[in-house]
Amino acid sequence: MPRYRITIEYDGTPFLGWQRQADGATVQGELENALFRFTGETAAVRGAGRTDAGVHALGQVAHFDLGKEWEPFRIREAMNFHLRPSPVAIIDCTQVGDDFDARYSATSRHYRYRILARRAPPALERSRVWWLPVDLDAQAMHRAAQALLGKHDFTTFRAAQCQANSPLRTLDRLDVSRYADEIVIQASARSFLHNQVRSMVGSLKLVGEGKWRPDDLKAALDARDRTACGPVAAACGLYLERVDYDVRPDATTEVAPDDD
Amino acid sequence: MPRYRITIEYDGTPFLGWQRQADGATVQGELENALFRFTGETAAVRGAGRTDAGVHALGQVAHFDLGKEWEPFRIREAMNFHLRPSPVAIIDCTQVGDDFDARYSATSRHYRYRILARRAPPALERSRVWWLPVDLDAQAMHRAAQALLGKHDFTTFRAAQCQANSPLRTLDRLDVSRYADEIVIQASARSFLHNQVRSMVGSLKLVGEGKWRPDDLKAALDARDRTACGPVAAACGLYLERVDYDVRPDATTEVAPDDD
Repeated sequence: MPRYRITIEYDGTPFLGWQRQADGATVQGELENALFRFTGETAAVRGAGRTDAGVHALGQVAHFDLGKEWEPFRIREAMNFHLRPSPVAIIDCTQVGDDFDARYSATSRHYRYRILARRAPPALERSRVWWLPVDLDAQAMHRAAQALLGKHDFTTFRAAQCQANSPLRTLDRLDVSRYADEIVIQASARSFLHNQVRSMVGSLKLVGEGKWRPDDLKAALDARDRTACGPVAAACGLYLERVDYDVRPDATTEVAPDDD
Repeated sequence: MPRYRITIEYDGTPFLGWQRQADGATVQGELENALFRFTGETAAVRGAGRTDAGVHALGQVAHFDLGKEWEPFRIREAMNFHLRPSPVAIIDCTQVGDDFDARYSATSRHYRYRILARRAPPALERSRVWWLPVDLDAQAMHRAAQALLGKHDFTTFRAAQCQANSPLRTLDRLDVSRYADEIVIQASARSFLHNQVRSMVGSLKLVGEGKWRPDDLKAALDARDRTACGPVAAACGLYLERVDYDVRPDATTEVAPDDD
């Protein structure tokens, strides 16, 4: 069966999250419904990351198999037509080998987190940023964040319901930058634990407010204790920005799944 | 009576435009209602630019007089409280002299126009960009745009219902830039005619598609004929970004009002 890889942008606000559920709209459900309306086939759409309710994507990746071969261009156009009016769009579609798996073949995942730090609430970016009517020291946040880079036991920054076998992850990037009133956090790793990015951001916020000293972030990591984590950051500030794959077809290897 | 100047951000999508109307929600109406709920006073809120239905603002400016003196900080906080859940936010509030007029004292207005040029529809930026599923040559658009700079009769790029006395305006900036799939047009002038920015953008789009040669834009300007204008660009891509005022209190002079 021909396999297709799609890159997807979505507004997570109206969805219960990525994963199909019986009792409400999900991104996976919208995609599978659009595929069915287009092809008449019931295909499972498997994503690189199972984003939570309210989390957005600029470049989620998924794959599915179809019984019939289609031009990738036609799949993209037809899915976008049948997705309307859902805020889900297929940015790209390519045919891939059947060893490609959106979740297991991913070599790197890139998340972006947006905080609007000002007294006035967001008018244009509502549901797109975490609004914090406080001053945040982005430089202190960035410096503290660097202590989380590398391979660690991230139990502190892992949701209680996380299903991953191991709490060990290797964090490749955790950059904090300021653009006027907005603070952007960029996190990259091969894979993340469930709620890991939002848990790290929630703790970084305490550093930014001066409630935690920079060393407190490292101490929280070292505690390997969920109760040492700051309050988890809001879902609406999180974006799955990009997922990388090794371009060599023989380089596909199985790595831990992503649940953030 | 003490006079206050406010800087306002809004999502224009749910509004009939800036100007108060009897038959639906407007930005001016929301602001005046919020002021009334806060102070019990019926105050007229006068804006720097009367944006059309669907047009957004990052930094609209307005002024109003109150019978009682308030801390500007309290006005901002109270208005933001009473504006909820409308997508309108007061970014800043200061007390000003009674010679300040948001519309007539403005020395420069800056608009931003966003085009998303790609096959896939916008999922996250719906109602925030003009979606054009075509390739646009941003460099050609920018080069052509430079012919509109300076003082001209902008009759071609002026709405039929424009109420300004003169079609003469001095355009200080019309820059076209590309950021990935997005094309951003930045326009600055002391004041604009009604629909001038959207009319210029609609014509620039024809240049970007190659349907107009760059010289055609200049020819359209020289025609001084509304029928020479390209189709007017969608309201949802337009943002009133900033309004400038001369900081010297004695420098307030009356200039032509803005109706874009």
